[in-house]
Amino acid sequence: MIAPFTFSQDDTLLFIDQRRLPWEEASFPASTAQEVAQAIKEMVVRGAPAIGIAAAIGLYLGIKHYKKSDPQGFFSLLKESKNLLASTRPTAVNLFWALDRMERVAIQSPLPIEKLKRRLRAEALRIWEEDVSANRKIGALGADLFSSPVRILTHCNAGALATGGYGTALGIIRTLHERGLMKLVLVDETRPLLQGARLTAWELYKEGISHRLITDSMAGYFMAKGLVNAIVVGADRIAANGDTANKIGTYSLAVLAKRHEIPFYVAAPISTLDPSTPSGDAISIEERRKTEVTSLEGLRICPRGTMAFNPAFDITPGELVTAIITEKGVVQPPYPISLSSLWEER
Amino acid sequence: MIAPFTFSQDDTLLFIDQRRLPWEEASFPASTAQEVAQAIKEMVVRGAPAIGIAAAIGLYLGIKHYKKSDPQGFFSLLKESKNLLASTRPTAVNLFWALDRMERVAIQSPLPIEKLKRRLRAEALRIWEEDVSANRKIGALGADLFSSPVRILTHCNAGALATGGYGTALGIIRTLHERGLMKLVLVDETRPLLQGARLTAWELYKEGISHRLITDSMAGYFMAKGLVNAIVVGADRIAANGDTANKIGTYSLAVLAKRHEIPFYVAAPISTLDPSTPSGDAISIEERRKTEVTSLEGLRICPRGTMAFNPAFDITPGELVTAIITEKGVVQPPYPISLSSLWEER
Repeated sequence: MIAPFTFSQDDTLLFIDQRRLPWEEASFPASTAQEVAQAIKEMVVRGAPAIGIAAAIGLYLGIKHYKKSDPQGFFSLLKESKNLLASTRPTAVNLFWALDRMERVAIQSPLPIEKLKRRLRAEALRIWEEDVSANRKIGALGADLFSSPVRILTHCNAGALATGGYGTALGIIRTLHERGLMKLVLVDETRPLLQGARLTAWELYKEGISHRLITDSMAGYFMAKGLVNAIVVGADRIAANGDTANKIGTYSLAVLAKRHEIPFYVAAPISTLDPSTPSGDAISIEERRKTEVTSLEGLRICPRGTMAFNPAFDITPGELVTAIITEKGVVQPPYPISLSSLWEER
Repeated sequence: MIAPFTFSQDDTLLFIDQRRLPWEEASFPASTAQEVAQAIKEMVVRGAPAIGIAAAIGLYLGIKHYKKSDPQGFFSLLKESKNLLASTRPTAVNLFWALDRMERVAIQSPLPIEKLKRRLRAEALRIWEEDVSANRKIGALGADLFSSPVRILTHCNAGALATGGYGTALGIIRTLHERGLMKLVLVDETRPLLQGARLTAWELYKEGISHRLITDSMAGYFMAKGLVNAIVVGADRIAANGDTANKIGTYSLAVLAKRHEIPFYVAAPISTLDPSTPSGDAISIEERRKTEVTSLEGLRICPRGTMAFNPAFDITPGELVTAIITEKGVVQPPYPISLSSLWEER
């Protein structure tokens, strides 16, 4: 099974370096919180659920070498590691959710420090396992929405590589494929970092799922041609009103889907829900390095003097989201009401 | 002044090789109809008006070495050259318009062959001059639509390089800049061939016009942020009902503009109008090589086994076009009526 990392008995978190896919399957080993933070920041690993899991393991790595028995020093180190990991990327809420959960377990477990360390290691692995299991359920619930063979368009990578494994949007596509209902996946290349071309196409190719690569600008053309039955994407954060932050370009797809009356589905574990954020306006959008836009794999694609903008995410208003598919159920507008039934499950 | 080619006294059509911009200003010389056809087909030169002018010159080059006095042989060679040049690219109508005009002049001019050749050479240059002059008028008429400083988003390259000079969409932007009204140009990079990043940014940089490069997927984000006052694009063919064929991705911009109540303008010379095509459904959309999508400057960006689609154009329904800006006037919906006043001017 494809996963974005392995975690060994000797506590090495071995990432697939996603920056190097599909050209090579290179490893990026991390055995400290700093190295995990670097891996998240530099997008060795990306995808909201995957960075949540990696951060949880990173938090454990941050405290595992604490040798004293003084709880105050331990919790101070825990806080420091948490802050470091939380500062890596601002938009995906799963990162903060996973770190908060780890911290809560630490605070609420009356254990001696060595045992607490083991408890935190186990909690991080539990977060991982729960995510894979959630994705299987998302896959099944999402696939249940279709009863005949379909063409699905997806954006970026909401696959095994973006999660603990199996994937959210690609979890649904995998399940549809297992059920013999997956006719064709249209894969948006997803500029600037090409997660669609490099990662989603790589996963689909490995699984033998029929797919075609298109540029992001072609999505509307294929919708107008009647060749898209549904759009399924992941999410980095879902606000209380259903507004969804996801990879830049998602919003355009939702607007086009609305025009063509094509269902637009967001697939995400409930750890992606953020009831404390009332709407998309309150979600911090990461602005990344301009060279991601002005260059491609080191090749400058515009004049030296040309500058760029590089927002990494956009907000899709809840009104454009046909349904949000979580492991706890599929919910439809109006969202503050339908989503609230899932909030306490987080 | 930037132009896509020069034509020397000794009849060499010297193209700027647009495939090599912005990395180098390389030349591609053509002195036969075959070489001009190759330049058009391989996109050494592109842009609807530019390929129309190049084809007209190419047609002259095709007959200039005819040495006999037999008119039948001459017209047979003319037809052969015309067919060759017409077969290069299917979507832009200016190509067919320019070739038809040249042929009509040949048929209607009762001249000995040597004089007819000179007549055709002059006609090709007249088409070129008229295009530059049309662009200046389009620039002025388009700029008249704005009375305060604006941010304009454009797609692909409808600039000097895409025309005889000055440009259509970029002609308006140049004029606004001359009038001190051009605040910022947002430049869609325009995958797969990056005409926005490589060519439009290059023109704007050379002119010192303030601009920022974005990926095609970011356009909706900036519209939602209120940072786009208008969208101005060129056109490859405008059907009788205002449906407009233009570079793939244009349609998505028009749908987004509609949602955000942002004016969506198409700037094109009347040679781009095609009254014989009732609607966009009847426009042939060129499907280009898959490697344009699966690779970028020789670097494969997806797995070896991944296939792609590559439609080079899409159709924007006339109802989404706020106005069509031509050198003969600015027309608004309903289009079959408003456009018909321009048809006889072609």
